[in-house]
Amino acid sequence: MFRRTFVLSVLSLALAACSQTPTETSAPEEIAKVTSDRAPNIIYLIGDGTGFEFISAYRYAHSTLGQEPIETPFDDMLVGAATTYPDDDTWVTDSAASATALATGVKSYNGAIGVDADQHPQQTLMEKAREHGWLTGAVSTSQVTHATPASFFTHHPSRRMYNEIADSFASTKFGADNELWSFDVLLGGGMSYFKRDDKNWLPELQADGMTIVNDYQTLENTQQLPVLGLFAPVALPYAIDDQPRLAQLTENALRLLSAQQAQTQQPFALMIEGSKIDWCGHANDIACAVHEVADFAAALQVAKDFQAEHPNTLIVVTADHSTGGLTLGQGGEYAWYSERVMAIENSLEVLVGGLLERSRDQWRDYLEPRLNLPLSEAQWQQFLGLEMSGSEDRRDHEKRIQQALVKLISELTRTGWTTSGHTAVDVPIMASGPYAEQLRGYKDNTDIAKVLLQIVR
Amino acid sequence: MFRRTFVLSVLSLALAACSQTPTETSAPEEIAKVTSDRAPNIIYLIGDGTGFEFISAYRYAHSTLGQEPIETPFDDMLVGAATTYPDDDTWVTDSAASATALATGVKSYNGAIGVDADQHPQQTLMEKAREHGWLTGAVSTSQVTHATPASFFTHHPSRRMYNEIADSFASTKFGADNELWSFDVLLGGGMSYFKRDDKNWLPELQADGMTIVNDYQTLENTQQLPVLGLFAPVALPYAIDDQPRLAQLTENALRLLSAQQAQTQQPFALMIEGSKIDWCGHANDIACAVHEVADFAAALQVAKDFQAEHPNTLIVVTADHSTGGLTLGQGGEYAWYSERVMAIENSLEVLVGGLLERSRDQWRDYLEPRLNLPLSEAQWQQFLGLEMSGSEDRRDHEKRIQQALVKLISELTRTGWTTSGHTAVDVPIMASGPYAEQLRGYKDNTDIAKVLLQIVR
Repeated sequence: MFRRTFVLSVLSLALAACSQTPTETSAPEEIAKVTSDRAPNIIYLIGDGTGFEFISAYRYAHSTLGQEPIETPFDDMLVGAATTYPDDDTWVTDSAASATALATGVKSYNGAIGVDADQHPQQTLMEKAREHGWLTGAVSTSQVTHATPASFFTHHPSRRMYNEIADSFASTKFGADNELWSFDVLLGGGMSYFKRDDKNWLPELQADGMTIVNDYQTLENTQQLPVLGLFAPVALPYAIDDQPRLAQLTENALRLLSAQQAQTQQPFALMIEGSKIDWCGHANDIACAVHEVADFAAALQVAKDFQAEHPNTLIVVTADHSTGGLTLGQGGEYAWYSERVMAIENSLEVLVGGLLERSRDQWRDYLEPRLNLPLSEAQWQQFLGLEMSGSEDRRDHEKRIQQALVKLISELTRTGWTTSGHTAVDVPIMASGPYAEQLRGYKDNTDIAKVLLQIVR
Repeated sequence: MFRRTFVLSVLSLALAACSQTPTETSAPEEIAKVTSDRAPNIIYLIGDGTGFEFISAYRYAHSTLGQEPIETPFDDMLVGAATTYPDDDTWVTDSAASATALATGVKSYNGAIGVDADQHPQQTLMEKAREHGWLTGAVSTSQVTHATPASFFTHHPSRRMYNEIADSFASTKFGADNELWSFDVLLGGGMSYFKRDDKNWLPELQADGMTIVNDYQTLENTQQLPVLGLFAPVALPYAIDDQPRLAQLTENALRLLSAQQAQTQQPFALMIEGSKIDWCGHANDIACAVHEVADFAAALQVAKDFQAEHPNTLIVVTADHSTGGLTLGQGGEYAWYSERVMAIENSLEVLVGGLLERSRDQWRDYLEPRLNLPLSEAQWQQFLGLEMSGSEDRRDHEKRIQQALVKLISELTRTGWTTSGHTAVDVPIMASGPYAEQLRGYKDNTDIAKVLLQIVR
């Protein structure tokens, strides 16, 4: 009960702070022009780490050289680009500061979850939506306690406070009788943060009326909000290694929200994160990345199909930053071998794990049919040289194998990476539906939130 | 005279081929909507190699950490992004194929100047403008015979045919009495291609009525079209090493064209290339790049000021591709040290030249006040180790020094580069004025030309 009281007091701070949220982005008369009787639904897709170069990589990876590249769900929606710098001593943001900016319209320091640079809670889009009687939800392929979903619903000084973030999701209540959680539907990974040794929230939540699901079949049959769907202890598997899930989760979230909306006429705000595009970027894993973006694109297509049926829906797509310093060109050659990227069958995480389970004399037989790359003997020896050049410490060795694989794949596919972290390069803004016009041109990431916050009424 | 006949026959081929130019990009009714009595002027700015990451780098380099980043002339103009792939066995274009696409609406092979994949000449925007009685012009900081300006006015199977390209500029004629060249104003570098041992075009051109200038003061005082202004034997110096010139050349081109327009009411099409942004990218020279983009932005501001006075003007800004695989993040650190980038006082070309003129014991004294970077002894020794590890061949040595400097500056500024060539990543489209709406969203580079070609009437 302490937690709930704490969270509620944090929230009142948030609401007090947010009454000063700047609103200079869009003139009120512009808003008035597009205002209909009913506020639109908001579907807010965030590709974590998904800079322009990831969209290009996705397009070419799924196209055939010599033919016209594929059309993508992004094509008719690109309207601008956003700066992403944090309120910190660097131009390069992390996911927490950027998600906070995208959720609250306020810049903060790297690591901040829904709080400003002074650690004061800031009202989020989802909280404002709740205050105005909207339905809310989020979908992610990471644990739902990860930086992006966390920043839309909770307030914490550090993104590492996964347990406390789970506590906030489980205990923050809205409504006259505290009868509402901050979300109607929350789908992703992260069971281990809700059901842990020191606290198992699940029985309590269920007793309070929350539907809890942990397998996809049950989710498909679920009809009753609120729903907490946790499909993995931490993050979901990579799309390249398993069945992609983001589009399926998005479909179910929209099914549940719109069924409720059909009865109550409440607008909804739904945040959908392609969380692990960023993780592929950190790992400098190009095959992983293009499959993850494909799942994100499929989720966007689900949202666009929904919008076609329900035109009073605004879709916004953006990224919190770009990851890895990806480029489609490496080492001077004028080429990017998309067909080689698509021939790779697993994430580096799976491949490194597979190698570590085997003796070195089995490695080439294990790797070659999974990489499907034209590997020369010299390249293979270079790979072995790199992975063997260091300590036997498992963690160090794992990292060296991973880096040797990145070098191999980069050279054979001509994929460039410059960092294991993030970059300061601007990210795309895509939008369609009511208010989309207000997101045109170069914006700051906070401007996106400011436009969305004004729609909630 | 042979040349002229040859060029003319090539041109008639071009015109024949172009009658089939596809026009599906924009529905005729859309065009009709924005059609006024008079076709608009077209100012087409091409930042060679200027992907999104160069715009981000320019913005942050000219901003102060802890303050809001600067506003740029690009901000209110971004409308979309373009794929740039050539009609070749790679997704990565060169400047010739891309300039041909941007000038004619037709894809071609890397190296092609105004010809399609079968080496058939394709009508360019400038040729169509001429056919319809428009004024035309181009400005570049490279030699005017370089791929981008060449592809807007000439037709050659290879971009390397600099002399033949100069011949085309000098001899291609339009008008009932062959009284018009293909351009009214052509400003940039490249004197050595027009005045060479085997052929000096200048006396002939002057006798025919062309004003030829080779210094900026004379240009400022020039009142009479046509003007050929060649201010360097090959390319102009880098903006970081000398006075930036693109904005000044743009101002003069617009002054000359609009003075003529005031008398004749002819619309004009002017192509302005920030040519050497690409060259800085090839050299992986970040300080060079941000100064070159600043000059390009200043040229855009000149164009926007002109547009403010002459609203019937369409401005389009794009890039032919991105160069170098630039990213703003390197080696895992969440930082990009913009103030260190701005502290560097010269291009790598100048610095490498300066080092080669000096004995090694003078190097550190030469470099440190020009780099202005916090160079440790270990970093200095790493630099010397790299530059000394190879043959004494001057060209090899020059390349090693350059690469060692890139490594040093990349680590100290956290600038990432992945290639000495180009990448396949999509590039920005910016536009304002009549027809700008037709360039929204993801497009192909040929779509930009198709929109512009339809405006010419």
